[in-house]
Amino acid sequence: MGEVLLPGLTQDHVEQLEDRLRTFLGSRELPLYRMMAYQMGWVDQNGEPAMAGEVRHERLHAQLAMSTASALGASPESAIDFALSIELAHHASLVHEDVEDGNTDRAGRPTVWWTWGPAQAINAGDGMQAMARLSLFAILDGSQPRERVSAALEALDDAVLSRCEGEYLDIAYQERLTLSTEQYLEMAAGRTGSLLGGATMLGAVAAGVVDKSVLHAIREFGRKIGAARQVGLDIESLWGERDVSSQGRLISKKKNLAIVYAIEHGDATLRRKLGELYMQRVLDPGMIGEVAALADSAGGRDFCLKSVTGLIDEAQRALSAGGFEGNQQAQLMGCAAALVEVGRNLG
Amino acid sequence: MGEVLLPGLTQDHVEQLEDRLRTFLGSRELPLYRMMAYQMGWVDQNGEPAMAGEVRHERLHAQLAMSTASALGASPESAIDFALSIELAHHASLVHEDVEDGNTDRAGRPTVWWTWGPAQAINAGDGMQAMARLSLFAILDGSQPRERVSAALEALDDAVLSRCEGEYLDIAYQERLTLSTEQYLEMAAGRTGSLLGGATMLGAVAAGVVDKSVLHAIREFGRKIGAARQVGLDIESLWGERDVSSQGRLISKKKNLAIVYAIEHGDATLRRKLGELYMQRVLDPGMIGEVAALADSAGGRDFCLKSVTGLIDEAQRALSAGGFEGNQQAQLMGCAAALVEVGRNLG
Repeated sequence: MGEVLLPGLTQDHVEQLEDRLRTFLGSRELPLYRMMAYQMGWVDQNGEPAMAGEVRHERLHAQLAMSTASALGASPESAIDFALSIELAHHASLVHEDVEDGNTDRAGRPTVWWTWGPAQAINAGDGMQAMARLSLFAILDGSQPRERVSAALEALDDAVLSRCEGEYLDIAYQERLTLSTEQYLEMAAGRTGSLLGGATMLGAVAAGVVDKSVLHAIREFGRKIGAARQVGLDIESLWGERDVSSQGRLISKKKNLAIVYAIEHGDATLRRKLGELYMQRVLDPGMIGEVAALADSAGGRDFCLKSVTGLIDEAQRALSAGGFEGNQQAQLMGCAAALVEVGRNLG
Repeated sequence: MGEVLLPGLTQDHVEQLEDRLRTFLGSRELPLYRMMAYQMGWVDQNGEPAMAGEVRHERLHAQLAMSTASALGASPESAIDFALSIELAHHASLVHEDVEDGNTDRAGRPTVWWTWGPAQAINAGDGMQAMARLSLFAILDGSQPRERVSAALEALDDAVLSRCEGEYLDIAYQERLTLSTEQYLEMAAGRTGSLLGGATMLGAVAAGVVDKSVLHAIREFGRKIGAARQVGLDIESLWGERDVSSQGRLISKKKNLAIVYAIEHGDATLRRKLGELYMQRVLDPGMIGEVAALADSAGGRDFCLKSVTGLIDEAQRALSAGGFEGNQQAQLMGCAAALVEVGRNLG
């Protein structure tokens, strides 16, 4: 199991969640199941149980849904059905993202497509996305008010669709040199924030919130946290410990806020140097140090740090706008801090 | 528009459906929308309206849902919300299938991935799948009984998941020489039959059927028809008019029932010849005539023709088992005939 535990949750909650995930994914005799179980970290490429500690899985999306429900006065357990669905949707999207970005490694192991080929990975991701939705149908049993069911179903699919919009921008921006920091942050909120926003929204729905403006406020909170998290990862990939999985985006020339800022605000010499590095088909990992130094000299690192703080402030304002104050806000901001992990990312 | 009109439907119904599809997909300001509209045949690669008659689109999945509802006594219009979702799910799966199979052409135009690249195509397919589900949420408005809503939602996602299982087999079988005809037909029912089974099930749900065994019977009808349709396409690709889009599966060495049969039942010489042709990475289109002659000489063509007839009989028995007799059965069997199009395929 992972190391992060969001506020309001105990190790027991996370273990309950893990049991439910395993039971649900194992409930169907699917030939696709082995790839899904591999993605979830339970088995190795041969379908044998993974060694303890081999794969760290935090289940952050599920935890966020459960912690949100808890912050709003419901029990974390009552949100498990909602939490399962967003966690599975997250992993389904990772399976596809790894094909799209050409990532060979994730969580210290070969990715699904690198192991079974792109065709099987695309298909397994589709199957996993269908499983994500089917997992939510437990709430169709009549025990939940009808409007809560509708809100949950739409929250899940809206989050998935919104993530696709962010991913579209991320891919489209890959071959562009000029991009504004605003465009970058919009992409990051969509790509990394949509499913976190879905998690907070599902947690709130589980806790009985039905007012649309309140639900939208808590979704906005999740989206801002997601954007902040992405910027934190951008900092990590340039100035953190050098490892393959944090640098995949850089190598495939996915945009990084520090570099976007440097190209937007640097002088002509710096822009030309970064431009030359970025004209290569893929970025040589050996050049990352040079890119980092150039971005730093143009103020890219400082801008990222300020952006993280700014996005966390915006997340807090979204909570206030939704009427979440006091202890509720405190617990949710605790989630925000854990998810952004600014301290750890900056080493 | 297309040429096929399933029993019980008028041109007006198909136009209503098309209007609803356009309105629904156009209802969100999505950067992904252009790729979706291209896949649906409405625009060209630049987003300009496609020329009239440029792309033939039959909307067979939607038509089947509406015709099924009509056969069971409901109006086709009452099934439109259900029909939209399965049609969009079908196109979402085509977008991914074209990446998985490396198809460069579909309906006489370059495929989405061939136009925008695999990363954007994978992502656009994901977005379209989310839109398929969101389109079904129109029935969450309270106008439909709760159990009907649950049944419809599960029918859609079960069909999508089941299709992934069939696709998994299709990809896994690609590099295998030996395969039984039973294994082939199981794959075909999953890969091609799942969404048609989803269409018949959704049509029945729209018409008010709630009994699970009856719903499963009509789904089985759709699955059998799908398998028959796949076998018809297999015949077409070997003995029909030679064109790229019908031969994509052959070229990428996806299994074909006639060849599976020939390898299972042919003599050693024939098996060796087919084996040599199939040892190539992709099959040379110029060799298809030779493959067809070899398969024919081993009885592969006759076996396919018999299989189509047998599957249509099984489809009819599924209807009888579900209690669909008389006019209901006659209309549904009319759908089956149109979908399998044996006559035209063997043209």
